[in-house]
This record gives sequence, structure tokens and C-alpha cells, in this order.
Amino acid sequence: MLPEAIEAMTEQLKRVGNASSLHAAGRQVRRVVEEARETIADSLGARPSEVVFTSGGTEADNLAIKGLYWARRPRRRVLISSVEHHAALDPAQWLADSQGAEVELLEVDELGRVHPETLRAAIERDPDDVAMISVMWANNEVGTVQPIHVLAAIAHDHGIPFHTDAVQAVGQLPVSFSGSGADALTLTGHKVGGPMGAGALLLARGLTPVSVQHGGGQERDVRSGTLDAPAIAGLAAAVGTAVREQEALHTRLSALRDELIQRVREAVPDVVLNGDPDDRLPGNAHFSFPGCEGDALLMLLDAKGVECSTGSACSAGVAQPSHVLLAMGAEAAAARGSLRFTLGHTSTPEDVDRLIDVLPAAVERARRAGLS
Amino acid sequence: MLPEAIEAMTEQLKRVGNASSLHAAGRQVRRVVEEARETIADSLGARPSEVVFTSGGTEADNLAIKGLYWARRPRRRVLISSVEHHAALDPAQWLADSQGAEVELLEVDELGRVHPETLRAAIERDPDDVAMISVMWANNEVGTVQPIHVLAAIAHDHGIPFHTDAVQAVGQLPVSFSGSGADALTLTGHKVGGPMGAGALLLARGLTPVSVQHGGGQERDVRSGTLDAPAIAGLAAAVGTAVREQEALHTRLSALRDELIQRVREAVPDVVLNGDPDDRLPGNAHFSFPGCEGDALLMLLDAKGVECSTGSACSAGVAQPSHVLLAMGAEAAAARGSLRFTLGHTSTPEDVDRLIDVLPAAVERARRAGLS
Repeated sequence: MLPEAIEAMTEQLKRVGNASSLHAAGRQVRRVVEEARETIADSLGARPSEVVFTSGGTEADNLAIKGLYWARRPRRRVLISSVEHHAALDPAQWLADSQGAEVELLEVDELGRVHPETLRAAIERDPDDVAMISVMWANNEVGTVQPIHVLAAIAHDHGIPFHTDAVQAVGQLPVSFSGSGADALTLTGHKVGGPMGAGALLLARGLTPVSVQHGGGQERDVRSGTLDAPAIAGLAAAVGTAVREQEALHTRLSALRDELIQRVREAVPDVVLNGDPDDRLPGNAHFSFPGCEGDALLMLLDAKGVECSTGSACSAGVAQPSHVLLAMGAEAAAARGSLRFTLGHTSTPEDVDRLIDVLPAAVERARRAGLS
Repeated sequence: MLPEAIEAMTEQLKRVGNASSLHAAGRQVRRVVEEARETIADSLGARPSEVVFTSGGTEADNLAIKGLYWARRPRRRVLISSVEHHAALDPAQWLADSQGAEVELLEVDELGRVHPETLRAAIERDPDDVAMISVMWANNEVGTVQPIHVLAAIAHDHGIPFHTDAVQAVGQLPVSFSGSGADALTLTGHKVGGPMGAGALLLARGLTPVSVQHGGGQERDVRSGTLDAPAIAGLAAAVGTAVREQEALHTRLSALRDELIQRVREAVPDVVLNGDPDDRLPGNAHFSFPGCEGDALLMLLDAKGVECSTGSACSAGVAQPSHVLLAMGAEAAAARGSLRFTLGHTSTPEDVDRLIDVLPAAVERARRAGLS
């Protein structure tokens, strides 16, 4: 976590009071929450009233997808990209399994991009029956950035609400809610140096999804539950700092990532870079290592102090090839032999040196293990 | 928050790592989460595998009620007490409004108690069609404690899953999940001196509610979302401490509350104590002040440094009489003229003195305001 976020959060932890209580302590906590709402809105080109606090990205995605589907019934169609995070795919799949939805996965090309024509064609098969559309801003595995404002504009041509999971984008790329044209946007704390248990759904005025979490009616009656003021304060501090430093971070990380990519290619000549080589997250480098099992390579690197991931953390430990790589047309074996290296605000050139020091031997060993 | 909980939480805030990641940092965080799970299970008479972490009580209630309803379809009946918190009532109401459920509110007596015969009669009207039953352990407004193990046993006679919202009970009363016979039990951090953004649903083995929050499949695939390790560590520290100190707190608070009740009665002779006079939460004193508006009285006391609540914080600011008091047979005017004083681990005899010093004048002024 960013020091600013830890400080904002720990300061609140010692206070008492429920933001919905009328007494003085409650009103003080309410002020903290409303200031956090303003900071987040200012940082992301939204209005304070458009910020709905949630417990994180998964909840925000569930609220956007299920909530807009229910709100727009009897429309049945949900259009969603085939490379979404499970936090978006799984709610959509559940709507299909048990709530009468018809979910259509939008195809991507070999770089992981949703083409505007793909979305337009999908809508036009039956525009009046489309309840909502969801396409992530940038992919959490391969780093590909989507043409969100173009896709949102196509949705708007048909008056259909457009949601984007921007969990990976905030703090890494310039993100403006109003500028994007999206009607709903997911963000989460722990991807911007904030706490894990706080996120938000930015929600355009006039759009009211059905609640996924019912109760006391907090957050415009769209999301109930006691407001977690310390985490919200930490989230706002992190978003504020991350957005302020985004451009500088982008410049630094892009250069470091390009160096990492080049040196990995030199060290392992047959490596394949996945995702869009140009329009990608600044801290993301995702490779397929032919002949390796990603899990084996991960463990070998981990033993040498290099931490990386196969697929997304949320499905770690599952020996299944990534749905993202499969959707991009990869073979199952290549998909299983893939690793993601993520650079963040604490990453340094020495981290890249360390990786390059240990990578060739680890790859060789993983390949031998794969043959035996 | 309890100092133990703040310490456990802040220690974690500085660490990195996702509990679902395979690398070393991820595995360390996973260990923190699993130790927290064991502490909570040990403290509450459950097995570690029965602890499902959530973002708080509202989410846990939503998961229990909606999730068990969906899991037990095509059964349609949901039996729920009429004095539940909105976090339980509102999910049930939504199931009735849009998911085909038939919700029956179980009546309470004038002390707020659900009688075992009331539950038995409700079940027996059509036992095979009952999907689930939900009755809170102790009421958040008037403090009445329900005969949970008797009610759970009746549910089990018919093989129906029984959920209890024990948010108010944990740390205040002896709570054993296995001893209670409940199949699902809600608890939350901020009621036991822990963080606001963490709670849990204790869930008996073999019982699998449908997810309310879909995604990466964390928490037995019942609840998805990145595990909030710092908040979970804080929750476990708070639950462990609160349960260890429960008996001593109960003794101290009951005596302080009884003194508060007696002195309020002396100061305002026509005051009415609401809820069960004997079987009630140790820190709860809930009164109706005839001729007063509760909100006016609250503001007058608040100005003198005494913080109390009308109804529950979650519906504060709403000028509606409490559904709990109405269900107990109160007139709307009496319900609106009610206030709850809550004593906790920081409360002292001086707090009671302070209340008694300022209460008579505040009541008199609120009555005059009510007449004009």
C-alpha cells in the first residue's frame, strides 16, 4: 500500500462512529466519507454523486452486470468480452444459468482486442433486447488496452448502458469517466496502492441498477452495508495519489517494461510476447515460454526471489489454461506455458536484472521437467 | 476498534501479496487468512472450514438468505422474523418482489420475542415448500434475545436450513455455532471492536448457498473477491479478544445498564423500557419517552455530549417509526419517541452520570417542542 493510503486509513481506524448515525461522531465519519467521494470523483472525471462505494472490484462488477441486467428486464441479452476477469464473466454466466439471460461473449483478435465492428454486429443482431454491455478497460493478464470510448459510443448509439471494469487501468492509464462515455466503471483499492476491502462503481446519473446487496439503503439505495470509512479514506488517498502520479509512473514503467521485454527476448529467443505490443498497460509483460509449464517456471523463479503469476491470482492453483489466451487463439499448451511479470511503483531496474540473471536456467530446467 | 484489532490490521497493511497468488508473498498472506479463520472458528464453536469471509454483516445476511433460497428452489417459502435488521428483511423482500419467493414475517410478542409455536405453526402450513428460515440472535434496536437453539431445533425437525444474524450477539453473549444448532450465522467486525469492512458467514458443512458475489471462486466458491487479509486479521483479533472477555464484559455492562435503566426511570418517571427486561443484550437500554420526538431528543442530548440512536443507524435520518417497535405492537407516536442507549467496552459509570445530568431538561424541552 502507498504510505499516503496507510496513513489515511490508520488515522480513521482509531475513530468511532457509523457514517449513517446522526450523532456527532457519526457526522464526523460521514464527512470523511464525503470528502473521499469528492477526491475520487475529481481524480477520475466524475461527479461525487456518481461514486458508489463497494467492498472491491468483484462486488462492483457484480453490481454493474447483474444490477443493470435486472433493471433493464425484460431485455435478455448481455454482451461481454470473452477476455473479462472472472469477476465479470461469472456474474454474466450466472445470469444465463439461472436468471434467463442470453450472454454473448464478444470475440477478440490475436492481440486480445475487441473490435468495434464486433460489438456493433453483436448489438445489431437484436438491439432492442440488449440489457447491458461490459468490456474491460485493460486486460489483467495480457495487458491489452481496449478502445473504450469507441465501444461506449457504439453502445450509446443504441441507448444501451455500457460498463467497463477499469480495475487495471486506474493509476496506470489516463482514466476519465465522463470522457470515456461509459455509464458504469469499476475500480478497486488494492490495484492503486490502496486497501483490499474497498472499491467503487462509478455510475452515471439516472442509471439505477438493482441492488445486489440489500439492506439499510446506503449509497443511493444501490448498495447497502455499513460504510467502511477507514478503507474508503485509504481508497481515496490511493486513487488521488495514483492518478496524480500516473503520467510519471507510465513513463518510468513503460521504459522499464520495454527493457524487460527486450532482455527476456535476448535471454530466451523463442519466447512469445502476448497482448498488444503497443497499446498495453505500462507495467505488464506477459510471455509464453514454449515447452514450459507456467506453474513449474513460476515455482523455480519464486525460489530465486522473483515473484510472478500464471493467469490471474484469482484462479491460481487451477491447472487450466487461461481463458484469455484461449480466446486470443492460443493453443492450450502455449497458454499453460505463460507467465505474467507485473511492474509497479516499487519496481526498479535491479528487479529486471535479477529476473534476467535467473530466467535462462529456470526456463531450461522447466523444459527438462516438461520432457520427463 | 480494540487495540489488538488495530495492531493486527496495521501490521498487515504494510505487507503485499494476494492470498490467492502462488508466489511466496501470496502464501504468507494466505497463512494470515487461515490463522484468522482458525481463531474465529475456535472462538465461536465452529470448524475453520465453516468460516466464509465477507465484507460485513449485510453481505453475510444477503448470502445466507438469497443464497439458501436459490439453492433450495423450487421451494418458495422464506420465514423470517418481523424484527430483523434491514440487512435480512430487505433481501427477503427482494426475493418476494422479483425472484418468486413467498416471504412470511414471523410475529413477535410485545417484548420482541419470536415464540417457538409461532415458528412451528408457520412451518406446518406447508413444510415442504420452506426454503429457509432466518431469525436474529439478538435484536439491534430493543436488545431482546431470541431462543435460537429452540427455533433451530424446530427447523431441523423439518430439515430446513436455519440462519441467524448474530451481529449483536457475538462478544456480548455466549455464542457457539455448533451449540446453537444454526446452519448459518452472520457476524461482523465493527460490532466486536474490529474493522468495518470484514465479517463472516459461518456455514455448516454440506450447505452450499448460491453465490451472491460471483467471480474468482474464493471462499469455497461461495463468495468471490480478493480476500482482504488486513481486515480479516483485524476481525480475528477482535473476535478472539471479544469472546475471551465476553463474560467479564457481560457482568460489568449488565450492572451498568441496570443502573442506567433505574436512574432513567427515576429521572423521567413515565419512560417505558422496550424489549425483554431480563433476556436482553447487556449493553442495550431502549426507551420510549412519551410526548417526545426521538430525533429532537437525540439532537438535544448530542449537543450535551451524549450520543445515542433512534432506530438503527442504517435507517437514521428517515422519519419513520421503527418497524421493530411497530411489530412489537407499539403505536407509531410511541415508536417515534424512542431512543437507544448503547454501552460498550469503553463505557463508564461517569457516562451514565452525564446522561442523567442532562436527560430531564432535554426531555422537557423535546416535549415542549412536540407541543408547538
